[in-house]
Amino acid sequence: MPSIDELAISTIRGLAVDAVSSANSGHPGAPLGLAPAAHVVWKAMNFNPKDPNWINRDRFVLSNGHACALLYSLLVLYGYDLTVDDLKQFRQLGSKTPGHPEATDTAGVEVTTGPLGQGISNAVGIAIAQNNLLLPTTRTTSSFLTPTSTPLLIQSYGWNVLEVEKGDTDLEGIAKAIDEAKKSTDKPTLIRLRTIIGYGSLKQGTHDVHGSPLKPDDLKQLKKGWGFPEDASFYIPDEVAKFYADEVAKKQKTQAAWDAKFAEYKQKYPEAGAEVQRRLDGKLPDNWRQHLPTYTPADKPLATRKLSENVINALHGHIPEFIGGSADLTGSNLTRATGSVDFQPPSTGLGDYDGVYIRYGVREHGMGAIMNGIAAFGANYKNYGGTFLNFVSYAAGALRLSALSHHPVIWVATHDSIGLGEDGPTHQPIETLAHFRAIPNLSVWRPADGNEVSGAYAAAIESTDHPAVIALTRQNLPQLEGSSIENTLKGGYTLVKQDKPDVIIVSSGSEVSISVAAAEVLSKQGVKANVVSLPDFFTFDKQSYEYRKSVLPDGVPILSVEVMTTFGWSKYAHEHLGINRFGASGKAGDLYKYFGFTPENVAELPTRPSSSTKISDHVGQTVGGLLNATFGNAVELIVSIIALKENQVRIVQASMLGSILSNLLLVLGCCFVAGV
Amino acid sequence: MPSIDELAISTIRGLAVDAVSSANSGHPGAPLGLAPAAHVVWKAMNFNPKDPNWINRDRFVLSNGHACALLYSLLVLYGYDLTVDDLKQFRQLGSKTPGHPEATDTAGVEVTTGPLGQGISNAVGIAIAQNNLLLPTTRTTSSFLTPTSTPLLIQSYGWNVLEVEKGDTDLEGIAKAIDEAKKSTDKPTLIRLRTIIGYGSLKQGTHDVHGSPLKPDDLKQLKKGWGFPEDASFYIPDEVAKFYADEVAKKQKTQAAWDAKFAEYKQKYPEAGAEVQRRLDGKLPDNWRQHLPTYTPADKPLATRKLSENVINALHGHIPEFIGGSADLTGSNLTRATGSVDFQPPSTGLGDYDGVYIRYGVREHGMGAIMNGIAAFGANYKNYGGTFLNFVSYAAGALRLSALSHHPVIWVATHDSIGLGEDGPTHQPIETLAHFRAIPNLSVWRPADGNEVSGAYAAAIESTDHPAVIALTRQNLPQLEGSSIENTLKGGYTLVKQDKPDVIIVSSGSEVSISVAAAEVLSKQGVKANVVSLPDFFTFDKQSYEYRKSVLPDGVPILSVEVMTTFGWSKYAHEHLGINRFGASGKAGDLYKYFGFTPENVAELPTRPSSSTKISDHVGQTVGGLLNATFGNAVELIVSIIALKENQVRIVQASMLGSILSNLLLVLGCCFVAGV
Repeated sequence: MPSIDELAISTIRGLAVDAVSSANSGHPGAPLGLAPAAHVVWKAMNFNPKDPNWINRDRFVLSNGHACALLYSLLVLYGYDLTVDDLKQFRQLGSKTPGHPEATDTAGVEVTTGPLGQGISNAVGIAIAQNNLLLPTTRTTSSFLTPTSTPLLIQSYGWNVLEVEKGDTDLEGIAKAIDEAKKSTDKPTLIRLRTIIGYGSLKQGTHDVHGSPLKPDDLKQLKKGWGFPEDASFYIPDEVAKFYADEVAKKQKTQAAWDAKFAEYKQKYPEAGAEVQRRLDGKLPDNWRQHLPTYTPADKPLATRKLSENVINALHGHIPEFIGGSADLTGSNLTRATGSVDFQPPSTGLGDYDGVYIRYGVREHGMGAIMNGIAAFGANYKNYGGTFLNFVSYAAGALRLSALSHHPVIWVATHDSIGLGEDGPTHQPIETLAHFRAIPNLSVWRPADGNEVSGAYAAAIESTDHPAVIALTRQNLPQLEGSSIENTLKGGYTLVKQDKPDVIIVSSGSEVSISVAAAEVLSKQGVKANVVSLPDFFTFDKQSYEYRKSVLPDGVPILSVEVMTTFGWSKYAHEHLGINRFGASGKAGDLYKYFGFTPENVAELPTRPSSSTKISDHVGQTVGGLLNATFGNAVELIVSIIALKENQVRIVQASMLGSILSNLLLVLGCCFVAGV
Repeated sequence: MPSIDELAISTIRGLAVDAVSSANSGHPGAPLGLAPAAHVVWKAMNFNPKDPNWINRDRFVLSNGHACALLYSLLVLYGYDLTVDDLKQFRQLGSKTPGHPEATDTAGVEVTTGPLGQGISNAVGIAIAQNNLLLPTTRTTSSFLTPTSTPLLIQSYGWNVLEVEKGDTDLEGIAKAIDEAKKSTDKPTLIRLRTIIGYGSLKQGTHDVHGSPLKPDDLKQLKKGWGFPEDASFYIPDEVAKFYADEVAKKQKTQAAWDAKFAEYKQKYPEAGAEVQRRLDGKLPDNWRQHLPTYTPADKPLATRKLSENVINALHGHIPEFIGGSADLTGSNLTRATGSVDFQPPSTGLGDYDGVYIRYGVREHGMGAIMNGIAAFGANYKNYGGTFLNFVSYAAGALRLSALSHHPVIWVATHDSIGLGEDGPTHQPIETLAHFRAIPNLSVWRPADGNEVSGAYAAAIESTDHPAVIALTRQNLPQLEGSSIENTLKGGYTLVKQDKPDVIIVSSGSEVSISVAAAEVLSKQGVKANVVSLPDFFTFDKQSYEYRKSVLPDGVPILSVEVMTTFGWSKYAHEHLGINRFGASGKAGDLYKYFGFTPENVAELPTRPSSSTKISDHVGQTVGGLLNATFGNAVELIVSIIALKENQVRIVQASMLGSILSNLLLVLGCCFVAGV
C-alpha cells in the first residue's frame, strides 16, 4: 500500500509523461527522476496558487527548463491557473504549457529557463531582491536545490554541500537535508541528490529517456508499477486531489498570517509601509523625472559615461528601487553613486542588505542572469549592470532572455566605440550595436550628450516591458543645441533643421556632434543639411509613420554616420559612413581621423565624386556621389519608371543625363558596402 | 651585486614600464609583478626567435593580455622581429606593439588575448593540437602558469595545484614548481604564485598601479633600486644582451637537434613523414573536394544537419586535420563521423590522442576558445564545434576573436530557426544571423540543400583567413534544381532565372525551397519571379560588382524571405518577410504557417495591396504592394526626379498615377519594419 506521498509522486510523474506523450515531444526523464525531490520541496515552500504573485512566497526556479512537464504538473495539482486540458496542449502553439517554461505565459513559472546555466543566477537575483526589499520578514540566505556532479567545485565557491544518496526514494533524507540547509545562516547550501534519469522507465538511467517520448508499453508498465489503471491518462486519484486541497488550505493560512502582519507593519510605520506599498504597486515616486539633470550648450563637454554617473548620483536616494552594480569595472563604468552603500551581508563589514550597489565581479553573463532574477522578483526593481559595451556580448544569452522575458533591466555599457582608444580592437565594438538592435524588444540607446543621457535613463527607468542597453562614451562630447529629454524619448529627431534640406545626416552618440559640425561646413558651401540624432532604433520605430517620415522624409538623400558596422543602417539611409572591419589600437583622436569621422570628411561625402567609392582601402566604405557636386549645372535624372500593366511590373531605367548611373544605387537602396 | 637573473628581470621590468610611460597608456603593474615568473618560464621553454613558427616550440600564452608590455619586452630581449623602437610605439596606430597582444601583428605572440577568460582555453586547444599531431615528440600533458585565488576550484576540476609563496623573489621555487609540474603525467598543473602587483613601485600592491602609467619619481626610484641609471630609458646592460644571446644559441641547438630527428623520422617513415609535412606546409590533400557529396533533385529530402553529417562522414579518413566535436549535443548536431575515435588520453580507455572527436561538454564559450587555440597552433588544422545556432551566442566573445584573429574555425550550428519547433523561443534564433553577419571577417553560411552544404564546407575548409558559422536545419529540405558547389562558392546566385523578371525573391537556407515554390505559384499568375539563393553575405559581397548586379539588378523589386529578423536585409532587398519578434513553441510546420512562410503567402506578397502593411499583428511585417496587382492596367509611375543644380539637389516626387504612394518606400529603400 503506497503512502500518500508515494501516490502524489506517481501522479506528478504520470501527468508529466502523459503530457510528453500527448505532445509526442518533450522530456520525460527529468520529471521522472525529480518528482520526489520536487514533491518534498514544494511541500516545504510557502506560496498561494490563487495569488501567485504574492510577494513573500517562496520561489521555485527550474534551472533545467526542459523538465517543465514536472513543473506544469505541480502547477496543475496545486490548482494554479493551469488545467489538465493545458497539459494536453503541452508544447502546442498558443498553449500555456510551452516547450520550456516561460514566465510570461504561465502563472507560477517564476523565470524563463531552458538554455542551461541561467537558473541558479536567476535565483541568486531573486534572493538579493528579497533581502534588499524592506519587508517585515526575517532576512534569510536562500538555499538551492540542484544536482551536480562536482560538490568540490561548489564547496570551492564557499557553499555547503549536502548529499542525499537515494534521491529517488529517500523522502525523509531529502526533507532532512532541507531542514539542515535552512539552519545554515552564513552560507548557501547545495543539496546533491543522486537520482536515476527516467526512474522506473524501461530505459531508466540512459540517454534514450532524456529527449524522446516513452513507448506505450513503457507507459503501461510504469502505471502498473504505481498501481494505476494502465490505460488511463491524466489520472488523479481522489485522495490525491484532496491532499492538495488540504495543502493549499494550509498555505493560504500562512499567507493570511503574513498579510495581517504586513497590515500591522504599515499601520505602525506608515511612511515606510507606504514606500513599500508604492513599490509593490509598481509606481515610481511622483515627479521622479525632476531629478534628472539637463544641460545647455554652455555646459562643458563631458563623456556620456560621466553624464550617466550624474544621473545615477541625481537619482540616488530618490528611487530606492534603482539599484545596480558593475562587472568589476566600477571605476571605469562610473556606476556607483557617491555615498551609496554596497549590498553585502552586514557580517562582512562591507555593506548591508539595504545597500544598492552590487559588486558582481568579472562575470557579465552571471550579472545579466542575476539582473533578470532581480527583475523577475517583482516590486518594480529598476536594476542596472555596468561593463564595457563590447563585453555585454559575453552576456548575449542572458540579454536575449531579458528581452524575451520583458525584464526592464538596464545595461550601462561604457567605452562604446573606437573612442576607447588604446585598448584596441579586442575592446572596440563593431558588430555589437547591430547585434543588439536586431534583438526584438530591446532598446539600444546611444545618447549624444547630457540631455540625451537623461532621456535614455528616463525611458529605461519608466519601461515596464523591455530592457535597455545604454551605450556610453569614454571620451568627452559637447552639449548640443536642440537636444532635450522630450526629443530623446521619441528615439530619433531632427536636431539641425533646414528649410528644404539637400541632404540629411543621421547619426548617433559621439558622431552626432561631428555631424552637426559637418552640416556647418556644408552650409558654407551652400548645401543645406539636416542632422538627425537617432539614439534608439527601437523607440523611433514605435513612433507614428507621419512622425518618422517627417524626420526621414522621402526624396532627400540620407547619409548615416556611426563608428560601427553599417549593417542595418540601410533601413534608414542610402549611404553610410561606418567601420566594416575591426578597430585598431591607438589614440581615440587618431582613430576617428583614420576612419574618416571628422566634420571635414563627413561634409565631403555628399559632394564627393561617385567614382570615389572608398575612403581608404583600410576602411572600405562605399561612400560618395550622394550629391555629386562635381557635375555642376542642370543635370536632370529621371531615376526610373515603374510601369504596372496587367499584373506585371516593368521597371525601366529611363532618361539619364550625365554619367552618374551609380546614383541609382542609392535611390534603389541597394548600397553594397565592400567588406575588407 | 645582483645576479644575472636579477639583472635580466630588472631589464624586462624597465622596458615594460618605459613602454607604458612612452605611450602614456597601458599597464605597468602586471609586468612588474610577473617579470620574475616570466623570466624563469621563458628560460625553461624551447623556441627560436628566428623561426618563431617552429612547430615544436613551447608556447607562451599570456592570458592577461593587458600585461603585454611584459611579453613585448621578452620578445625584444630574445631577438624576435621586434625592437626597442617598436616598444617606443607601444599602443600607437600601426605599431607592432598594440594595446593588447595580437598574433596577426607580432611574431612571437601565440594568440590574441585581452578580453579575460580566453587564455587557458586557448592553451588547452594548443595542447590538444600538439598531442594530436603526428610528430616525433613524447606526447606530454602541458602545464600552465597562471595566478588564481581559488586553488580549490582548480583542484575540483582535477588539476594539481602547486604554490609558490614568494613569487616576486623565489626564483628557485618557481623553477622547482615547473620541474614538479613536468613530472605530473596524469593531470595538468596550476602553479599558484603569490606576487605583488606593481612590485617595487611606490604604489605596489594597489589598484592604482593596474591601469595608469607610473609617475616619473616612481620610475626613478625603481631604476635606482635596480642599480640602473635613473634617467636612462630602454636601458639594456651589456651583460644582459650577452646573456640572451647565449640563451638563444642554446635554444637554437635544441631546435637543430629536433630538426635532425624530424628529418630522420621522415626518412624512416616516408609516408607518415610526408603526411605531417603536408600539414605543416598548410596544404590540403590533393583533390580533396572529390570526396564531397553532391545531389540531384531526385535525391530525397534531408535535414541540412544530416547533409552536414554526410560531409563529415565523407571526409573522415581523408583529411586528418579536419577534427571537431560538439558541446554535448553530438546526437543532435550529428557531428561525429561513423567509426571515428574520440580524442582522449589512452589511459581513459575512451579514445586516444589520434582521435579526431572532442567531447566538449556544455560549454560553448570554452569550446570556441579551445577551437581558436587549435587553429592558433598551426599545422593547418580545420576544426569545428557543434551546438544549436542559438547557443553559439554564448560564445560571442570567442567567435569575435576567431574573426579578429583570422582563425578558420568552423561552427556547425544546427537547429537554426523556428524550424526546430517545440523547444520554443528560448531555443529559436531571431537576431543570431544578423549578429554574426555584422561581425567583420566571418562567413555565415545558411545552405539550402545538399549541394549548398557541400559548398559551404568546401569554402570553410579551404579558408585560411576567416572563420565560418554553418547554420543547419533540424527539418528536412528538398534537393534543389540548379544548386551546386560552384554556385554556392559565390555566396549568392540566381537559382530560378527568368527572362526579364518582374520580381526577385532572395532567400537563404530552409526558405529557398519555399521561395522556389512561390515562384511557381506566381508563374501561374503570369508574374515572372527570379529566385536568388544567398547562403553567405560575406562571400557574396566579395564578388565583383558586375556579378552582384547580375544577381540583384537595379530596377527590379526585390523581396527577402528568411525566418529571422529582417534587420540587415535592406542592403539587398526592398521588402522583407521575416520575424521581428521572438519565436514560439509549437510544431515546425505550424510555426512556418503562423509566421507566413508558405509558398502561397510568399507568392501573395508582391501582389498584395500596399495598404495591407501587416501579415498579422503577431508577425508585424511591413510587406505588400511590391507589384500592387490590384491596380490592374496601365498605371505608370515616375518615381522621382533628381535635379542637380549648382551644387544642390532637389528631389522631386513627380507625376504619379494611382494611389500607390507607399510604393515609393520600396524604391527609396526606406522600408520601415514595425516592431512588435
